[in-house]
Amino acid sequence: MPIVQIDLLEGRTLDQKRLLVEKVTQAITESTGAPPESISIIIRDMLKENYAKAGKLASDK
Amino acid sequence: MPIVQIDLLEGRTLDQKRLLVEKVTQAITESTGAPPESISIIIRDMLKENYAKAGKLASDK
Amino acid sequence: MPIVQIDLLEGRTLDQKRLLVEKVTQAITESTGAPPESISIIIRDMLKENYAKAGKLASDK
Amino acid sequence: MPIVQIDLLEGRTLDQKRLLVEKVTQAITESTGAPPESISIIIRDMLKENYAKAGKLASDK
Amino acid sequence: MPIVQIDLLEGRTLDQKRLLVEKVTQAITESTGAPPESISIIIRDMLKENYAKAGKLASDK
Amino acid sequence: MPIVQIDLLEGRTLDQKRLLVEKVTQAITESTGAPPESISIIIRDMLKENYAKAGKLASDK
Repeated sequence: MPIVQIDLLEGRTLDQKRLLVEKVTQAITESTGAPPESISIIIRDMLKENYAKAGKLASDK
Repeated sequence: MPIVQIDLLEGRTLDQKRLLVEKVTQAITESTGAPPESISIIIRDMLKENYAKAGKLASDK
Repeated sequence: MPIVQIDLLEGRTLDQKRLLVEKVTQAITESTGAPPESISIIIRDMLKENYAKAGKLASDK
Repeated sequence: MPIVQIDLLEGRTLDQKRLLVEKVTQAITESTGAPPESISIIIRDMLKENYAKAGKLASDK
Repeated sequence: MPIVQIDLLEGRTLDQKRLLVEKVTQAITESTGAPPESISIIIRDMLKENYAKAGKLASDK
Repeated sequence: MPIVQIDLLEGRTLDQKRLLVEKVTQAITESTGAPPESISIIIRDMLKENYAKAGKLASDK
């Protein structure tokens, strides 16, 4: 049942994404007891121009 | 006022999306009484490499 | 696989929520072909003071 | 700490996005006291075929 | 059309929320040209135990 | 920069949440290289009546 949404800057490789979902699923199972098959993860790649911190776009830093 | 976000794997046709928003809007109106013009729907198409279940990417299944 | 998030003003009854998830699941299956067991729905009840349109809180209308 | 997600129809220029994140960050700081460096903003550009109101896709209007 | 979701730590007063939605709506209109009546804002109050940075819950800081 | 939103059924203890954010942060750092202090996690506790799978509320199962 846990549904996870991860927004991160674009550029991660397929292998990094494989490792990401494997490790995050394991982390959730170990800490909450939720079985792996109940865990859904959505990854959202963001353009640098679509993320801002302290009022500045990441593409302008 | 109901705001709906639907994340689903990419690949649906324009006609499927037309039917999706028409039917989901109708479903919400019929069940909650919210008028159709108050219902907003956001569809997010996902790459298979950006969705995982049980620690595995959909693109690896 | 479709993951649906529905934000709506608090106050719906349990029966309305039953009907909502039943009808929305059916709407998604009929329009996209996604099997019902693959569809997850999250309902988020909102206080009127936590929703605004045109710069005004719903609780002030 | 405030995390802001803004979904809007695609087509805004980079300058509009610069102004958007600058002004929204300022608005949040002035109204809640949250320091600018604690405010994250995610912008999501939407295709017109991925947004619907009253059961109709924006691309069909 | 812009849909805004703002997650922030609980504890803001009703007046702060009034000012928040008024100023954020104005900021979006001024920067993107979207008319105020097209802008929806969802505020989500978070318990300190439900927000973490650098692996630590805000309630433990 | 990675922003994580985790929706899960209510009932987890504070200690489980501590372990959850610690392990998920570590998992993201190890797989993507993002430094821990750049990772924000939002946990959203859900009532069973607000989550559905295959058209059925979790509270009805």
